[in-house]
Amino acid sequence: MTGSMSKHERLPPKLNAAEMEAFLEREFPQVFGSRKMFHVEAVDHRFARMRCRYDPRQLRPGGTISGPTMMTLADTGLYVAILASIGPVALAVTTNLNINFLRKPDQKDLLAECRLVKLGKRLAVGEVSIWSEGEEEDLVAHATGTYSIPPER
Amino acid sequence: MTGSMSKHERLPPKLNAAEMEAFLEREFPQVFGSRKMFHVEAVDHRFARMRCRYDPRQLRPGGTISGPTMMTLADTGLYVAILASIGPVALAVTTNLNINFLRKPDQKDLLAECRLVKLGKRLAVGEVSIWSEGEEEDLVAHATGTYSIPPER
Amino acid sequence: MTGSMSKHERLPPKLNAAEMEAFLEREFPQVFGSRKMFHVEAVDHRFARMRCRYDPRQLRPGGTISGPTMMTLADTGLYVAILASIGPVALAVTTNLNINFLRKPDQKDLLAECRLVKLGKRLAVGEVSIWSEGEEEDLVAHATGTYSIPPER
Amino acid sequence: MTGSMSKHERLPPKLNAAEMEAFLEREFPQVFGSRKMFHVEAVDHRFARMRCRYDPRQLRPGGTISGPTMMTLADTGLYVAILASIGPVALAVTTNLNINFLRKPDQKDLLAECRLVKLGKRLAVGEVSIWSEGEEEDLVAHATGTYSIPPER
Repeated sequence: MTGSMSKHERLPPKLNAAEMEAFLEREFPQVFGSRKMFHVEAVDHRFARMRCRYDPRQLRPGGTISGPTMMTLADTGLYVAILASIGPVALAVTTNLNINFLRKPDQKDLLAECRLVKLGKRLAVGEVSIWSEGEEEDLVAHATGTYSIPPER
Repeated sequence: MTGSMSKHERLPPKLNAAEMEAFLEREFPQVFGSRKMFHVEAVDHRFARMRCRYDPRQLRPGGTISGPTMMTLADTGLYVAILASIGPVALAVTTNLNINFLRKPDQKDLLAECRLVKLGKRLAVGEVSIWSEGEEEDLVAHATGTYSIPPER
Repeated sequence: MTGSMSKHERLPPKLNAAEMEAFLEREFPQVFGSRKMFHVEAVDHRFARMRCRYDPRQLRPGGTISGPTMMTLADTGLYVAILASIGPVALAVTTNLNINFLRKPDQKDLLAECRLVKLGKRLAVGEVSIWSEGEEEDLVAHATGTYSIPPER
Repeated sequence: MTGSMSKHERLPPKLNAAEMEAFLEREFPQVFGSRKMFHVEAVDHRFARMRCRYDPRQLRPGGTISGPTMMTLADTGLYVAILASIGPVALAVTTNLNINFLRKPDQKDLLAECRLVKLGKRLAVGEVSIWSEGEEEDLVAHATGTYSIPPER
């Protein structure tokens, strides 16, 4: 009757996964262009699930997917979770990223689930779990990231 | 028939919450002694839930529970989750702690849920969510910690 | 002749070490009170050197100074370096602390050198090296911290 | 007369900058290959200075060098500092990387100085300062990284 929304009411995402990919391809052609590695599998309010395609060109000696690729996956996924929550208008800027590498990934796609633990007006903080496809119980990396959200214009 | 255990079969905790508190009071009298602030509420394999009693002596200017108190809560809780998983024999050593402070806590008890995202033979990594009692949706801090587990003697 | 100051001209500290200790004892009696562990040895623009007195009450099993004590030392030292740079008016708030524990400290005082790598209007970031007295070449811990500086009133 | 070496005696690097680049081009052709962005400018025991060439292809919206590029620069530089110290035999593995982004880089090359704060038999920890060429006083990013060094074969 009041129409007021609780702070934690389930909100729909501002863009769905297909809209998000179209936005990313347009804005970040280097990362999401023709031979893109990173795919948005699902988005929701404060959430994104990403896929990083296994690509032998990314391999380090010893055959693992590189650490920088996983850092990029974590950073991109949190950025997508923020856009899914506040829409594609604002330009969030990463201020901190912390990543723990837990074990050597397999020669498979990586999946990442990205959740915002805080979504304020000026600051968003999230955490990311990364695993090799089919091995969700045995994470290959875990990251947290902090983002500054510029004031609305 | 095989008796083999899957790596991720649900295991019981090696100590229950009461046994854990008794162990901690004996081993860490400075932290878990007579006027102790930190309490073990629940433990499970790879998990601990901790309570930090609101205590005006810990207050900083402006009335918040201090950052160092929350760091200690996160570190202690992950230590408890490791002991719950591998038993009280080994002495795990913190090698890294990273904490994001998300908002000012209320003048209430803090609760912390601590989950291990990796439990290897030599290394354990976990994450901690901290909130003011009754406000689980609005975290006051989020931490990750890394622990070195010495080889068995 | 111009009177303009370069951004990185050497500035004097806004408080000297004695003024800083008096301020801290008044504002943080729990930490800097009668039996205080933490001492301000020197301050400068964007810099503080702190001492943590060896105190057997702080010992963990195995005889080391506790991780939380070192986290508090790092956090307090960066806070002092900020106050030394901007004066005691504003209330800086820790938003992130990341600490690596490198080796077991000796049963001696700890010294910490705290340097700001960024001092903006709204954000300060610093790093801390911690060692056992007389062993500066062999750090026991290294930390970085991020602080939010509220707008001036 | 004793011939004993102090633990902190100045040691020469195990490879010089040119040998290091040749090693990296051979082992990491994806990163240090024909159109390589990252260059080893100088190495010493526990130290590396790296250059990241300004390359418009790396730009994000708004024109800055991307966060992932700076993470890769930090990670690669610490890896080079470890190789410079222990030689190209062992394969160090990144276990943690924490990076603070301090301001938007200019449209210039980035320089990074990478110093090991610990170099143990099994663990190395280092810190990295990154700035736009000519603006060493105003860091664009600061990182710390932790590396696991496998036992010698």
